[in-house]
Amino acid sequence: MKIALAQQNYHIGNFAFNRNKIIEGINWAKQQNADLVVFSELCICGYPPRDFLEFDNFINGCYESIDIIKQHADNIGVLIGSPARNNQKEGKNLFNAAFLLYEKEIKAEIHKTLLPNYDVFDEYRYFEPAFEWNIMKFKGKKLAVTICEDIWNMGDNPLYRITPMEKLIVHEPDVLINLSASPFNLGQDVVRNSIIKAHALKYQKPMLYCNAVGAQTEIIFDGGSLVYNSNGNKISELSYFEEAYQVFDLDELSQKEITTEKNKSKYYYSSKEIEIGESRLAYLANEKNIAEIRKAIVLGIRDYFSKMNFTKATLGASGGIDSAVTQALAVEALGKENVMAVLMPSEFSSSHSVTDAEQLCTNLDCNFENISIKNIFGSFLTTLNPLFEKLPFGLAEENLQARTRGNLLMSIANKFGFILLNTSNKSELATGYGTLYGDMAGGLSVLGDLYKTQIYALAKMINNETEIIPNNILLKDPSAELRPNQKDSDSLPEYSILDTILFEYIELRKAPSEIIAKGFEKELVNKIINLVNTSEYKRNQFCPILRVSNKSFGTGRRMPIVGQYFS
Amino acid sequence: MKIALAQQNYHIGNFAFNRNKIIEGINWAKQQNADLVVFSELCICGYPPRDFLEFDNFINGCYESIDIIKQHADNIGVLIGSPARNNQKEGKNLFNAAFLLYEKEIKAEIHKTLLPNYDVFDEYRYFEPAFEWNIMKFKGKKLAVTICEDIWNMGDNPLYRITPMEKLIVHEPDVLINLSASPFNLGQDVVRNSIIKAHALKYQKPMLYCNAVGAQTEIIFDGGSLVYNSNGNKISELSYFEEAYQVFDLDELSQKEITTEKNKSKYYYSSKEIEIGESRLAYLANEKNIAEIRKAIVLGIRDYFSKMNFTKATLGASGGIDSAVTQALAVEALGKENVMAVLMPSEFSSSHSVTDAEQLCTNLDCNFENISIKNIFGSFLTTLNPLFEKLPFGLAEENLQARTRGNLLMSIANKFGFILLNTSNKSELATGYGTLYGDMAGGLSVLGDLYKTQIYALAKMINNETEIIPNNILLKDPSAELRPNQKDSDSLPEYSILDTILFEYIELRKAPSEIIAKGFEKELVNKIINLVNTSEYKRNQFCPILRVSNKSFGTGRRMPIVGQYFS
Repeated sequence: MKIALAQQNYHIGNFAFNRNKIIEGINWAKQQNADLVVFSELCICGYPPRDFLEFDNFINGCYESIDIIKQHADNIGVLIGSPARNNQKEGKNLFNAAFLLYEKEIKAEIHKTLLPNYDVFDEYRYFEPAFEWNIMKFKGKKLAVTICEDIWNMGDNPLYRITPMEKLIVHEPDVLINLSASPFNLGQDVVRNSIIKAHALKYQKPMLYCNAVGAQTEIIFDGGSLVYNSNGNKISELSYFEEAYQVFDLDELSQKEITTEKNKSKYYYSSKEIEIGESRLAYLANEKNIAEIRKAIVLGIRDYFSKMNFTKATLGASGGIDSAVTQALAVEALGKENVMAVLMPSEFSSSHSVTDAEQLCTNLDCNFENISIKNIFGSFLTTLNPLFEKLPFGLAEENLQARTRGNLLMSIANKFGFILLNTSNKSELATGYGTLYGDMAGGLSVLGDLYKTQIYALAKMINNETEIIPNNILLKDPSAELRPNQKDSDSLPEYSILDTILFEYIELRKAPSEIIAKGFEKELVNKIINLVNTSEYKRNQFCPILRVSNKSFGTGRRMPIVGQYFS
Repeated sequence: MKIALAQQNYHIGNFAFNRNKIIEGINWAKQQNADLVVFSELCICGYPPRDFLEFDNFINGCYESIDIIKQHADNIGVLIGSPARNNQKEGKNLFNAAFLLYEKEIKAEIHKTLLPNYDVFDEYRYFEPAFEWNIMKFKGKKLAVTICEDIWNMGDNPLYRITPMEKLIVHEPDVLINLSASPFNLGQDVVRNSIIKAHALKYQKPMLYCNAVGAQTEIIFDGGSLVYNSNGNKISELSYFEEAYQVFDLDELSQKEITTEKNKSKYYYSSKEIEIGESRLAYLANEKNIAEIRKAIVLGIRDYFSKMNFTKATLGASGGIDSAVTQALAVEALGKENVMAVLMPSEFSSSHSVTDAEQLCTNLDCNFENISIKNIFGSFLTTLNPLFEKLPFGLAEENLQARTRGNLLMSIANKFGFILLNTSNKSELATGYGTLYGDMAGGLSVLGDLYKTQIYALAKMINNETEIIPNNILLKDPSAELRPNQKDSDSLPEYSILDTILFEYIELRKAPSEIIAKGFEKELVNKIINLVNTSEYKRNQFCPILRVSNKSFGTGRRMPIVGQYFS
């Protein structure tokens, strides 16, 4: 039996688009003489559909799509993911399901058991866990079909009380197949390989794992579908960050070698391995990871624009490293002709802020405009003068400049139909070192899940072959330039220290006392954590952030705004 | 036995504050010679603590608070709610628990079984459902203690497969006690009464229900704790929207009358009653509901400010009904001396927009400033002229005015330490009829969960005795005044039609086809639903909205931004 994997990029709620793509996949698989073609989790509607699932009409749309697709599943089996109605009296009204289509009929339906409900995932909000576990019979073979999280408990994951594969294995399946929608974050590919391998080894069965690819707003699915044979050897790892198709021969995958017990246990999966993200800051900025992040972000930008039906971007070019990296990645994703940078110097801008930004535009061969904010800022001050009187220049005036820039950028975006790309980084979002409606404005945050340390590493990678980002941008001290001679280091420690403290608090959920115990200055740690917790109200109004870590601000981190913890 | 209920207003994460309040409650109950005092769900840390629960240190804080409180539970029993660690191997690491403290010890601990994971609730994200069900023994009595949602399944709620009370009732308890954190939304008081009464009747036991009160950011807990006797008669309904304490005699509550089977079944709870919110728009704007909404919003404003440690508010006063109602409620919540209105007329502003707003400030005896945006707006146009050239006046210029106002308001807020109150309503938030960073700016949305129809009803109620909001504001046509002679009705239908269509789509999750089938114009319905779905990106950046309906924008409604459903 030949089994094909179709790793595709869907669009949430766009039934026609997803359906056509699936039918293309079926046709490709037919040309390869495949017996069965496997698609990813919830491919019918795209993942995550969120509260669209509460619309009865949306579920009808899923079933209508299945009806059309099954006409193409004539002499080929098709495994697709879709929400399915729960027709039993008990339980929520939906399952997260997989359907086997064949001979133009729905031949089998199975339901997901383990419903992720952490970080960005809310599946328990919508779905009822499976009531029963059945294998699918197809052309004389027994398929053990599971959905994504179902394989993430091998008996030792404290999140769950059930191990679905144990329920299926008693039926002696010939092959393990998993339909997945597993997003990218650092190290996730390693963990996925580990768990698929562990399944193949533990059960001595071939395993095929089909992942989705493509970004859905902030969540970036990275593909990298996997096939392991029954000896636990990796047979294929499909491309990352792009669509991919491949056919496999089940007989070949099923051929047994003699394995030693030692070899077997060596690759046993343990949920401990999930903690791979829990290492030092250096890990976040190492070359493999930065290269992956770059691909993830480029895909994230490209898909956000195409799925929102936009082509052109604008951004504020300050001459700093964040906007430089954002601009370079935007050009990579959208093309140089689709990115317009706007320089908006003020009286506090250094001369290099303009020349560096201009040089970057020249290097990228990118359009730019230079618009001084001096007159508008002056006009604000004059208008506010009767009210502010002799009060000293302060935060209000600093923010005014940032918001004037935000206003200009949004005007340009409105006028020409651009999306404004936000250039904030995770370090400043964490500490609230940014102005709401000012530099925090924008439709999509490109670098909001990258600590400043990682942005420097990314800039160096972009400059690997030729100097795209002017070296001076990498060398000069970061500054918001909102008052004379301002530097980030006036109010924040150097980024290597700041980022480590933030990582301990945000990613590892360590308390200040625990961070201090690692050797950081008490006053500094308390100050930083206080900044993080008192700027929740700002992040709450921030745009979606392309997610590359396992703890990004946004839907993955939900904090009470009025909370008084360390604040 | 005398049992006291303590309905209190906690502050999330503020352990010392909550602890002191609980100890005050204990002391009050001691003075009343109570044997037992009952507090609300998660009172130790405040509800909802959200991702603070992922911090080990936060859980330590809860246990430390319990340790201190139990010293005060000497000769009185204290029932409190707190997260508790799951020490078993299986399951997530926390329970949502209730502790019985007595003789300075933890005497008993029970765990919540039904974990709400819909709308604004995410409990399955953090907690493991109970593994076992035990009653608590106290002074010779058997207490069946449950937590909030545990009583929301009487065997017919499809969300759940377990009925916790059925597990407890086999132990023949003397009294049913529920610790709750149940937020306000329209009709919720009616449903709560119905379900408590149904329990008392079904099990022929007295039932005491202790709810929290007070707002936690957008979620407003309304109190209204309930006591029913074993005959299903209501003995007490504590105050709504304020703290309250009361003591009850268990013997009196337990005295049996003869009940007829007919009477018994009449008050049987059915989950169908949850659908009380699913009625017509008129229901949303009836007098009882508008009066409740008013109290809820006033509490919501007051608690947001006090818990964020602010006292003063500012807002943009346009002379329209939304800002007028916002201002009146802000004065009610914070005091006239703490509210400053800012009038910001432009060349497109009608004369009445200024005179009406001024009259309102006079009626409320409120400070105001009048700041023309003319010069700043002109300065923006001049600066952008080289780029915009001869392109016609359009959306960009309209938004520029709104954003200039947003910028002025934020400057004033920054300068004087105010919070900017947002004045958007649900109808315009739904349709995207607002400018990001402009009239959508602010720290807290006061009216964002009220359709325009409800705001008119609220304005009339505010004017019940004297004309606080100038009548002209209620009579004139709504307008954004961003271009000459603009009216809301240029681009939107009249609000009674708009709001009904929005209610069908947002609250009832009906598809356009279903709404059209009710007699609305096809083109209009499709246009409106399209507006709703294409403005998701705007709402995603909006501030918290005081929640008064059972489907408010914000954490209770989670939509994919790149989704293509009806868009």
